[in-house]
Amino acid sequence: MQKYRAYLIDLDGTMYRGTERIEEAVDFVKALHEKKLPYLFVTNNSSRTPEQIADKLLSFDIPAKPEQVFTSSQAASNYIASENKEARIYMIGEEGLYHALQEKQFTFVDENPDYVIIGIDRNITYEKLAKGCLGIRNGAKFISTNADIAIPTERGLLPGNGALTSVLSVSTGVKPIFIGKPESIIMEQALKVIGAKKEETLMIGDNYETDITAGIRAGIDTLLVHTGITTKEMLVRYKVQPTYSVHSLLEWIDRI
Amino acid sequence: MQKYRAYLIDLDGTMYRGTERIEEAVDFVKALHEKKLPYLFVTNNSSRTPEQIADKLLSFDIPAKPEQVFTSSQAASNYIASENKEARIYMIGEEGLYHALQEKQFTFVDENPDYVIIGIDRNITYEKLAKGCLGIRNGAKFISTNADIAIPTERGLLPGNGALTSVLSVSTGVKPIFIGKPESIIMEQALKVIGAKKEETLMIGDNYETDITAGIRAGIDTLLVHTGITTKEMLVRYKVQPTYSVHSLLEWIDRI
Repeated sequence: MQKYRAYLIDLDGTMYRGTERIEEAVDFVKALHEKKLPYLFVTNNSSRTPEQIADKLLSFDIPAKPEQVFTSSQAASNYIASENKEARIYMIGEEGLYHALQEKQFTFVDENPDYVIIGIDRNITYEKLAKGCLGIRNGAKFISTNADIAIPTERGLLPGNGALTSVLSVSTGVKPIFIGKPESIIMEQALKVIGAKKEETLMIGDNYETDITAGIRAGIDTLLVHTGITTKEMLVRYKVQPTYSVHSLLEWIDRI
Repeated sequence: MQKYRAYLIDLDGTMYRGTERIEEAVDFVKALHEKKLPYLFVTNNSSRTPEQIADKLLSFDIPAKPEQVFTSSQAASNYIASENKEARIYMIGEEGLYHALQEKQFTFVDENPDYVIIGIDRNITYEKLAKGCLGIRNGAKFISTNADIAIPTERGLLPGNGALTSVLSVSTGVKPIFIGKPESIIMEQALKVIGAKKEETLMIGDNYETDITAGIRAGIDTLLVHTGITTKEMLVRYKVQPTYSVHSLLEWIDRI
């Protein structure tokens, strides 16, 4: 059995369920921490900053520093920077996306942007969507942090960024470049951040359609943990299986 | 050459272009008016009331009463009434839709509606979209006034109701029933309102994809006028041709 030198780890459904603690996940990350194995939390959540997410993990007693968190907003910002360090950007999104773009010192503009980027925005307005459409129609490159169609909340499933993104794609006829899982873009960026090769890295997550597919597409070994979305019964239906699957991360502690 | 007893007429691109008068259209409607031939303006615009639209037509010197205007909001409201006169409705939309639904004395609710209906809403919020998604996920029937992906404005093409509708359809996985052109629902409703048979009615419009397709689907003869969207060059590419096509409505005055 291979020993992995680095871990990429999903958050919701893997480390916690909403506000509910997953005990085995806490013990697992503590074990990684004690063995000084590098790990990076990789999340499609574009709305929060790494600091805010690390705080949430710490509140569950999971050892996490802001630099151990990598969001789809950071991946999107890195992606744009790799193409054009002086990009003029029109952004639709929340605090996490704003901070990630600001960190790269891009110029924020309302008209004639080089890039239109959208992340979940619970203060969405028609005017924001209008500016996004006009930017894309004027030739801006169209980026979306992630394609999630729904967000689980206490009220039920609310619209996710993939649903908001469709306003721009349906209206303009231009398809965006999605950055987050299951795309390999966020995974390649995450490998750079953690400084590991894909052969020595394991991607852990609860959702086959995002976490595991992202790992498979990026050529990274995958571990599916049945504490969230994808049950054992659902998993058997997929043609390409994850490298490993476990009921809880307790089962993996001896293997790190 | 057949004489038609009733006319269904599109607005933007046919009667005017935004705020620009189309002289031949004014003369044409005046001729219909003088000959006492029934005509009904059929529009996908869900945001305004028949009174507001009649006022706009009158400002161009086009003879129009509110009862000669039929909007996708009215068609949607009639459609729901034909299924359930006491429907509980969650609505996303503007004044025109609100008035059309209110006229049928439906009950407006925020939770557990029988119908979720969406029309263009330039005061759209995440909360409105969230309530729409929750309603549909709870089993409400999903209606959209029209599928137009963009609205022409002085600033350029802004998101249309079809683009806003996609937030709900992408997030829930449920496809809406569209009411407006090119659907035949609005045409069948319009025939009822004008009180004419389809064999004796002519549909006039400038847009093949909406006006002419709606006529064809509803089995109504069609007249394409090249004063708006569909040019002569574009028209030759369509397999099913309109019954007639003219450069301006001046050419049709002798035939009424």
